[in-house]
Amino acid sequence: MAACIFCKIVKGDIPSFKLFESDKVFAFLDINPLSKGHALVIPKHHGEKLTDIPDDALAEILPVVKKLVTATRAENYNVLQNNGRIAHQEVDHVHFHMIPKPNATEGLGVGWPQQTTDMDSLKALFADIKSRM
Amino acid sequence: MAACIFCKIVKGDIPSFKLFESDKVFAFLDINPLSKGHALVIPKHHGEKLTDIPDDALAEILPVVKKLVTATRAENYNVLQNNGRIAHQEVDHVHFHMIPKPNATEGLGVGWPQQTTDMDSLKALFADIKSRM
Repeated sequence: MAACIFCKIVKGDIPSFKLFESDKVFAFLDINPLSKGHALVIPKHHGEKLTDIPDDALAEILPVVKKLVTATRAENYNVLQNNGRIAHQEVDHVHFHMIPKPNATEGLGVGWPQQTTDMDSLKALFADIKSRM
Repeated sequence: MAACIFCKIVKGDIPSFKLFESDKVFAFLDINPLSKGHALVIPKHHGEKLTDIPDDALAEILPVVKKLVTATRAENYNVLQNNGRIAHQEVDHVHFHMIPKPNATEGLGVGWPQQTTDMDSLKALFADIKSRM
């Protein structure tokens, strides 16, 4: 997509610290990192959200994330993919963050507002979702 | 692994709200959800961190996450996989969270402590990581 910054990076119109490239996947350093080694893996296929990406491209993403972890020598790390502005997505081209977590202050901050629920509600929800799987 | 709660769920020794199962992958509702529809996708292969999982199992994970998103009808959502206690991993069997983000308070809380860096540091880091890719 002409206006997409990540499509421009894939095409080479914007320079990047490219770590990996295949027919379907591209990986590069995040230049606004949360920690040293913070990198992105993206499908070359332009799509805003996970559901917009073909399965054959999705299949190649995590093996590349794994390569990045090994090359970065991260011991602790988060893999994160955000969908929608409210879910902290800032660029509208699917991207997976690999964010090393070297200590409590650097890297991703994780907020975990666990809800109270009950078995009856879960059972009803399960039946509803399962019917569409 | 005998003591692993997720291996027990895969074997059926512990009941779960199973949404999907194939030879290599298993998906179920999180019973301590951050939001309605919060679900987990795991490889059946036991491994603590992403780098412990074979590529052929990793390849099947994201297409199943995509199915969950569609079935859950989540519009905004986060996909998260934590590695290491400091990175908020609570069960030592690789698992991918699909967490709907219906509003600002429910779902995943994302903390983004962006670092200041400079091109020279990034260039040096890039050369170092790239040499191991």
